Amino acid sequence: MNIGAYLNNKKCEFCLWAPFLNKVELNIISPWEKIVPMGRQEGGYWQAEVEGVSEGVRYLYILEGKTSRPDPASFYQPEGVHGPSCVINHNSFDWTDSRWEGIDSKDMIIYEAHTGTFTPEGTFVSLAERLDYLKDLGINTLEIMPVAQFPGERNWGYDGVYPFAVQHSYGGPDGLKSLVNACHSKNIAVILDVVYNHLGPEGNYLRDYGPYFTDKYKTFWGQALNFDGAYSDAVKDYFVRNAIYWLENYHFDALRLDAVHSIFDMSAQHFLKVLSHRVKDFFREKKRRVYLIAESDLNDSRIIRSCEQGGFAIDAQWCDDFHHALFSSLTGEREGYYADFGNVGQIASSIENGFVYEGQYSVYRKRSQGNFCRDISPSKFIVFSQNHDQIGNRMLGERLSKLVDFRALKTAAAAVILSPHIPLLFMGEEYAEDSPFLYFIDHHDRDLIEAVRRGRKEEFKSFNWKGEVPDPQSKDTFAKSRLKWQCLHKDHHRILRDFYKELINLRKSCDFFKNPRKELFSVTCFDSEKVIMVCLKNTENSAFYLLNFSDRTEGIKLHLEESSYSKLLDSSDKIWAGRGSGLPALLKGNEQIFLEAFNVAVYKTEV
Amino acid sequence: MNIGAYLNNKKCEFCLWAPFLNKVELNIISPWEKIVPMGRQEGGYWQAEVEGVSEGVRYLYILEGKTSRPDPASFYQPEGVHGPSCVINHNSFDWTDSRWEGIDSKDMIIYEAHTGTFTPEGTFVSLAERLDYLKDLGINTLEIMPVAQFPGERNWGYDGVYPFAVQHSYGGPDGLKSLVNACHSKNIAVILDVVYNHLGPEGNYLRDYGPYFTDKYKTFWGQALNFDGAYSDAVKDYFVRNAIYWLENYHFDALRLDAVHSIFDMSAQHFLKVLSHRVKDFFREKKRRVYLIAESDLNDSRIIRSCEQGGFAIDAQWCDDFHHALFSSLTGEREGYYADFGNVGQIASSIENGFVYEGQYSVYRKRSQGNFCRDISPSKFIVFSQNHDQIGNRMLGERLSKLVDFRALKTAAAAVILSPHIPLLFMGEEYAEDSPFLYFIDHHDRDLIEAVRRGRKEEFKSFNWKGEVPDPQSKDTFAKSRLKWQCLHKDHHRILRDFYKELINLRKSCDFFKNPRKELFSVTCFDSEKVIMVCLKNTENSAFYLLNFSDRTEGIKLHLEESSYSKLLDSSDKIWAGRGSGLPALLKGNEQIFLEAFNVAVYKTEV
Repeated sequence: MNIGAYLNNKKCEFCLWAPFLNKVELNIISPWEKIVPMGRQEGGYWQAEVEGVSEGVRYLYILEGKTSRPDPASFYQPEGVHGPSCVINHNSFDWTDSRWEGIDSKDMIIYEAHTGTFTPEGTFVSLAERLDYLKDLGINTLEIMPVAQFPGERNWGYDGVYPFAVQHSYGGPDGLKSLVNACHSKNIAVILDVVYNHLGPEGNYLRDYGPYFTDKYKTFWGQALNFDGAYSDAVKDYFVRNAIYWLENYHFDALRLDAVHSIFDMSAQHFLKVLSHRVKDFFREKKRRVYLIAESDLNDSRIIRSCEQGGFAIDAQWCDDFHHALFSSLTGEREGYYADFGNVGQIASSIENGFVYEGQYSVYRKRSQGNFCRDISPSKFIVFSQNHDQIGNRMLGERLSKLVDFRALKTAAAAVILSPHIPLLFMGEEYAEDSPFLYFIDHHDRDLIEAVRRGRKEEFKSFNWKGEVPDPQSKDTFAKSRLKWQCLHKDHHRILRDFYKELINLRKSCDFFKNPRKELFSVTCFDSEKVIMVCLKNTENSAFYLLNFSDRTEGIKLHLEESSYSKLLDSSDKIWAGRGSGLPALLKGNEQIFLEAFNVAVYKTEV
Repeated sequence: MNIGAYLNNKKCEFCLWAPFLNKVELNIISPWEKIVPMGRQEGGYWQAEVEGVSEGVRYLYILEGKTSRPDPASFYQPEGVHGPSCVINHNSFDWTDSRWEGIDSKDMIIYEAHTGTFTPEGTFVSLAERLDYLKDLGINTLEIMPVAQFPGERNWGYDGVYPFAVQHSYGGPDGLKSLVNACHSKNIAVILDVVYNHLGPEGNYLRDYGPYFTDKYKTFWGQALNFDGAYSDAVKDYFVRNAIYWLENYHFDALRLDAVHSIFDMSAQHFLKVLSHRVKDFFREKKRRVYLIAESDLNDSRIIRSCEQGGFAIDAQWCDDFHHALFSSLTGEREGYYADFGNVGQIASSIENGFVYEGQYSVYRKRSQGNFCRDISPSKFIVFSQNHDQIGNRMLGERLSKLVDFRALKTAAAAVILSPHIPLLFMGEEYAEDSPFLYFIDHHDRDLIEAVRRGRKEEFKSFNWKGEVPDPQSKDTFAKSRLKWQCLHKDHHRILRDFYKELINLRKSCDFFKNPRKELFSVTCFDSEKVIMVCLKNTENSAFYLLNFSDRTEGIKLHLEESSYSKLLDSSDKIWAGRGSGLPALLKGNEQIFLEAFNVAVYKTEV
């Protein structure tokens, strides 16, 4: 069933799923009032068709003749999570992206942004105004954090309770469409972050409609969704339709599936498999390329393996191991999950394979973690040195630039952007934005606010971090988290941005760096366990890059197969605010060279 | 770590896992007394080596200097679940099966027996005395219901709480070894039913030792085992070692893994995968063929698929769909899970593919069930018309012979034994034993007994069954469930047994029936939806059999490809207590024939 409210020539079809209810009525409340009985359909669905409805009409459902509730598949909640739902006409927007052909996921250079804090205005429209900046940086894919209607006006987005509705304070459906359309006009693909593992704690009325949730499993954020119990077909269908909905009506190019390790489905038809099959089938018919990208804490290659290999055929997954190895090497932090990381060999291993943990014992988890992934194409892993979680889940929301020196930021940038995987940047990372990215909410229920505050304090108790936990409910916490952009005009910040730009340019212009096949690159970690060398080949040439993770000069002995290599990039150069490079412009045969602290250098055979 | 108590030349190594304890002592209590401090080992293990220990020594562990507990990996509990553990010498038994080569799982004809009720004595030794009877019947594989030490003396075995100990009232370790040895001497393979999804409710002291259990998931029978949380590596290891233990020390040929749908493991290393890998690796080195067979309610082909296909590489699984389709067609029952069954086409589908539900909606489960399995070899499915659960989980424990007439019993027998899958019989089925197989327990805790009684009554409330729920705790309930064997001397019972024997003989002697490859057989359900025809081929000949599930004569039109077929078996023949067959001895070309009610006939091309 086509859940939601679908306009078609002034007729509107309302449909919802409520298998246990005996009576459901549609209550149109504005601009005129009417109560329409809904007809029971097969499978627990209810349906009504109403004439004379146009975009903007507000409505609720009346359950059992007494309880008024917004539509669980509401397309818009202009008055917030507790207000009425609003009819949207998805045929009225003037799309101008008919010639947009999409970007192969392998070629993506992703920029993760939070709509509310990317600009002072915090809207889709203001975000769209910055696209030229992203374009100039070399970004070809924008990923926006969840926009499904959440309680209040300030939220990361993971507390969304209307999976089909666009956050009103960001600019609603038309704002979002404008953003995607503007992106496509600039050849930028757009990824939407969607949450299919839980719903937020405030304004979640789905329970009143049906068995969307289960007590069989628990998630960190509350009740798990019912993906394998009685009535779970309709729950699966709700979210599959949601995925198709965003891709179809908003022209998104891909979805990022939040925390799939909290999707519990023991059935023979795992939700992720059903999702990827149905989404791919739907868009194959429409001849559109769409991608699904998972965030997963499991290190389970099943998620990204093909159906033939028993996998879920998700196109790519976030590779936290890459981040953790890189971050802990650069910062020296060993608390929490960083306990499992800290040596440079792990960075090499992640560059080569994706997961660091392929079944080894994890001290942090107190059990083995992960499974074999080294046969998997590097383009199935998304890597980053920062993202909303890795920054925002720190008590003070410090970006990497607050924790390591300028030289190390360049190393981190190169490790990510030159990696064989798909690179992802978090907004502001490229110019070492001064603002933190803190955790913020805007709930209305006092008890809930207190619970979140307490939970936040509890979370950081075991860490040896100094300072106070910022109040997540405070407007100030949100304001602090906004990108300020000012520092971009300061020397080192601008230079860092230019360095990112140069790296992205390098990645895009040299086919070495673009999705090398497994057999065309190799990774070495030198004896010192401080320097990594990544060698790349194509049919005619070869290249390599060196990453020094030491805060001291490191001498290494090179054994070069090809005759002669010329230097393409050197982070110690003065143009990158280095001390001036000591590395030779040309390299051949066996040579002893010295890399300065955190030095990054790229060489390529001469043509 | 080699958990348990291992004797080696009068030295005994005691080892256990107790990661949270600060002090563990070994308390030898008979035939002499001694307290030995245990040494802490890596990974939460504790170890002590004691001289002068021989078989029969009784011991306990003292936890934190105060609580005495039996060994969680006790090899023997001669005084029951609450008594001390006993040292066993696994090198002392005189095995005479060194020339036993095992049976390919594909060739198995399995007979499931419950040791306690198979004979009046209810012991391994008395069971072994009946092997010639099984041999004569044609059985080549005995499957015994769980023998791990359970509370009291009467239990199906699924309440076991010492996974390594052999039930004392059945005859303990030596009794079990004698049974397996006797089986092997008669070329009978032996399968042990093991329970890796929960432990019984009484005498389970594992919680005192460590985090064997988790609250993350629930099973129907209580707390789930901790297969994916912190410390789960050791829990997995405990059960993997258990599997190897039975196969190695007791020479079992295969294990039947009880209810794997209640094994919850979201990690990237699913317990079943780890189990099958480690067990297979272990015995590959020893050049022994061992098999793992799963009971699963998921209809998830992943369980029996190869690693390359992302599967767990379990060798075979019970096919409940086959049973349900057959049972509901023959009995007309539609309650409980039979709501999803009842048409003969489903029997045809299960003969052809294994699962009937490969993703279709199940009315009983209120969601879709299963996934694609029709590419899987038929020898990966185990089929039956009766088993301990299908009989014993009925309120009155009625065998099929109490529910359908004699003619239908022959149809059921043929459907199972001639199927391309692996056939399994439940003890007494072959001669239509008069006794029921009821649910029985022998707990000591009054509250627990009451809870089981209540639970049992609750379970049958929704059914329209007449009569009282037999008291599971009563000795009489157990006594009633014993095979009486007397009726075997009565005409129809003996004839049924001979019919089973004839079918088994047919299966074994004609290569048609032995594990046909997918492409070598086809299944047709005639328009009447009452008669199934299964056609089989080998390189030279072809055969077919007809199963009439109607209680009336059914006329069908045959279109035979080969020139001429002669009749091998006809259940309507007078020798099978039929009315005398009306089917021609020879069949050729297109012929209209008439099958009597429940008639089964087998034809083969003439050589």
